[in-house]
Amino acid sequence: MQPARRPGGRSAKVRAAVHDAVIDLLREEDWDTLSIARVAERSGVHQATIYRRWGTLPALVDDAVTEQLAKGSPVPDTGSLRGDLEAYAMQAAADVAGPLGHLYVRAAQVSTRSEDYQTFMAERAVQLEVMLARARERGEDPPGLLELIEVVLAPIYYHAIFFNRPIGPEHARTYVDRLLRLRAG
Amino acid sequence: MQPARRPGGRSAKVRAAVHDAVIDLLREEDWDTLSIARVAERSGVHQATIYRRWGTLPALVDDAVTEQLAKGSPVPDTGSLRGDLEAYAMQAAADVAGPLGHLYVRAAQVSTRSEDYQTFMAERAVQLEVMLARARERGEDPPGLLELIEVVLAPIYYHAIFFNRPIGPEHARTYVDRLLRLRAG
Repeated sequence: MQPARRPGGRSAKVRAAVHDAVIDLLREEDWDTLSIARVAERSGVHQATIYRRWGTLPALVDDAVTEQLAKGSPVPDTGSLRGDLEAYAMQAAADVAGPLGHLYVRAAQVSTRSEDYQTFMAERAVQLEVMLARARERGEDPPGLLELIEVVLAPIYYHAIFFNRPIGPEHARTYVDRLLRLRAG
Repeated sequence: MQPARRPGGRSAKVRAAVHDAVIDLLREEDWDTLSIARVAERSGVHQATIYRRWGTLPALVDDAVTEQLAKGSPVPDTGSLRGDLEAYAMQAAADVAGPLGHLYVRAAQVSTRSEDYQTFMAERAVQLEVMLARARERGEDPPGLLELIEVVLAPIYYHAIFFNRPIGPEHARTYVDRLLRLRAG
């Protein structure tokens, strides 16, 4: 490649092309068959460029998946606690059932110590805290963030990982009922 | 190796030695550095024997981990529903926090479609159903198996996978409180 005249612009384009190739390949095939050679072929970016920029395949996958996660659905704002929680639960179930669902789990396993992943998790936590704070401002009695994660999000992931069978939206909605019963009880 | 005179006995010994080597190596180091060569070196069993018997590294890991899971703790029988649930939750939290904890998750990801893993999950489900049936016979009102898994087991795994920080026994016990509050409410 020629030296870039506008390094920011070209750099961003290379990054996007490589990220897209990683995510496409991970949608289509097994994680274990992924290689930098295949990413280069798919993205049209030279292997040497990829190695220079990301160093290793795990670092590249980490970067691509974390960015993909960050693009994820915004937290809902429906005007009521139950509405927000149901929309959130149904969206989470759909995400985990979707073509990138297994990535979220695998990313957590390889990335929990990476700074990008920690940043992503922290930002997501803040967004959810804002959703719960809105309910409090409306005079509702929202759960804490940890309770929301444990009662609603954890079983959504458990089904996908251990039963290899993601749940549907109606099943996800029952977790919200459970959470609200715990608050009321 | 010489042809075995007692094929059952030698076969079982080879299997145990290879399994032990796999589990030891997985305790000590990253999954990704495991190889049949390293298993051969550690177990003292020829690579050719391992290849002939298991075919591939994933098949070998699957077999070793599933057997390890099956050796896991028996379900408790304390004489009360709360006692059984608390012992079960605390044991599960300890297992996930232990040196093989990450194996359980990784095994589920690679094995959910394997017959051995399905058999293991089905056997474990039966054991838990027996524990819940004992409570019913004593006149208690136990949860269903799915409710137990979703409310108690799922968050134990979620903490370990997504926060990379397994919970302690007292935290696990709060999930039992939650489950019993849902039953009472």
